[in-house]
Amino acid sequence: MRSYEKKYQRYRSLIDQKIHSCVRKHEPVSLYEPMKYVLSAGGKRMRPLLIVLSCEAVGGTMNEAMNAAVAIEVLHNFTLVHDDIMDNAESRRGRATVHKRWDSNVAILVGDELVALAYRELLRTKSKAIAQVADVFTEGVVEVCEGQAYDKEFEMLHDVSIDDYLLMIAKKTGKLFSVSSEIGGLIGEGTDREIRALRSFGTYIGRAFQIQDDLLDVIADEKEFGKMIGGDIIEGKKTFLLIKAYERAQGKDKKLINSIIRNKGTQKKNIPLVKEIYERYDILQLAKQSIEKDIRQANLQLEKLRDTSAREMLFWFSNMVLNRQF
Amino acid sequence: MRSYEKKYQRYRSLIDQKIHSCVRKHEPVSLYEPMKYVLSAGGKRMRPLLIVLSCEAVGGTMNEAMNAAVAIEVLHNFTLVHDDIMDNAESRRGRATVHKRWDSNVAILVGDELVALAYRELLRTKSKAIAQVADVFTEGVVEVCEGQAYDKEFEMLHDVSIDDYLLMIAKKTGKLFSVSSEIGGLIGEGTDREIRALRSFGTYIGRAFQIQDDLLDVIADEKEFGKMIGGDIIEGKKTFLLIKAYERAQGKDKKLINSIIRNKGTQKKNIPLVKEIYERYDILQLAKQSIEKDIRQANLQLEKLRDTSAREMLFWFSNMVLNRQF
Repeated sequence: MRSYEKKYQRYRSLIDQKIHSCVRKHEPVSLYEPMKYVLSAGGKRMRPLLIVLSCEAVGGTMNEAMNAAVAIEVLHNFTLVHDDIMDNAESRRGRATVHKRWDSNVAILVGDELVALAYRELLRTKSKAIAQVADVFTEGVVEVCEGQAYDKEFEMLHDVSIDDYLLMIAKKTGKLFSVSSEIGGLIGEGTDREIRALRSFGTYIGRAFQIQDDLLDVIADEKEFGKMIGGDIIEGKKTFLLIKAYERAQGKDKKLINSIIRNKGTQKKNIPLVKEIYERYDILQLAKQSIEKDIRQANLQLEKLRDTSAREMLFWFSNMVLNRQF
Repeated sequence: MRSYEKKYQRYRSLIDQKIHSCVRKHEPVSLYEPMKYVLSAGGKRMRPLLIVLSCEAVGGTMNEAMNAAVAIEVLHNFTLVHDDIMDNAESRRGRATVHKRWDSNVAILVGDELVALAYRELLRTKSKAIAQVADVFTEGVVEVCEGQAYDKEFEMLHDVSIDDYLLMIAKKTGKLFSVSSEIGGLIGEGTDREIRALRSFGTYIGRAFQIQDDLLDVIADEKEFGKMIGGDIIEGKKTFLLIKAYERAQGKDKKLINSIIRNKGTQKKNIPLVKEIYERYDILQLAKQSIEKDIRQANLQLEKLRDTSAREMLFWFSNMVLNRQF
């Protein structure tokens, strides 16, 4: 496992370098200064890693996958910048969001240009499958927009079911994971069966990743997580936890959850109460089980691939999603 | 000329049909309802026409160019939706803008998804040159963002020169015209010389189109134009006219122009005064000359193409830009 951690750090720093070199221009300053700001913010770079490992797992090389890896991360950053405007978020990765540090107009334009840069990088990919790669990428952009639209719609609804929620996160979060693993497989010239397995791997990983995110809002270490614990509760975000609690809770527990949903949030002092409800009705356990099940399913997909060290690292990757603390 | 007008209407209605069929989905409603609203608003469809005619002029067919034609129009609509947010525009094509009818969040997301749909359509193009087509398209998106960034920057500056202005409109408006004619040439498998001529044609046409737009703000018929006459003056927009007037005007004329620039606009009652200044210093004449020169240059580019009826219609096209009243 240690060696995979090292390899991850090496890939991550290569990806970081290449992402920085995406933006060489300086003018117009109002565009390129915030672009650099966004792309230098770091991040786990999970989606690019997934592209590279998926490519390697079917016999391709890191270099072949590198442009697409950068593209998916730039695209991911576009979604962050625009989502932050829509969510009126103050900070991201410990720094002010673009629309707070500059303004909304700047943030809109920065997001738009990030999409263009993502395509520019993607289209530099030398691959027989470039047409398919571009198609998969484009359907990714479409679904991410749909996912965000559902997310904003759900903010206004009281009766969001767990199925609604799963559809939303499949699009908003899951899709870019399955796009990543599928594109990696395509560039590495995997067989149809391998590519299907990789896409499916990405889908399961993406769902596990998001539900883990919901869970970490309650159980993470605030410092490591980099976000305030219970933030989702304060905002009344319809997470896996809140929706399940709404389904299961009874009596005054139900009343509290209901009030959070109707009032679109609650006071900070109520966080411990909600946590207790989550524990009382085994909601945290339920989330963990869901994550574990997805990770098992993801790993089953990997069984369909050849036994290579890249596949081993994909097992390590799914394990990382399972056990991540931040 | 009559027959070209007819052909234009025929192409336009084909393009309209195909644009409507871009969006078949209904959910999420918050995304697809405003998407349909935007794409059904009509418009002159000049960029798609330019793609089709450029393709035909080098020996290609309308059908080959149709996906790209739809793509460029969808992309153009993306720029309108996002620009309208940034400019806080109330109406567009006689209807409420997306962010006014819905809200900014919806408009951001609609714009984002329009980019994705534009790429989806573009990538359906069956052409040997599809990689180049996609590259040219992507550089178009980049430059349009840069152009909009300059435009917003210039709003905050007092000393915007005519060269600054020309750079800005080359990116914000001109680029999508040259992208259109170049893509048409690529899909039609024109020679390098033909494609260069077409691209250059688009560049001149784009500049003429924008300066004509600036001019129409002052001289158009309000009803036909669909916008209030003098709107640019009220907003203190740094158009070709205002910048030239600032360069040329003297004494109290200069003072008025200066105050409009510093105050970022003026009252409606000052529109006739500004018009008089434009006339007194031959600014309208200057704009007309600039447009005429660009159209001549554009037509010279067409001389490099084979003598076909598509080329004749491109002459008609440049003439339409020269003489348009709205």
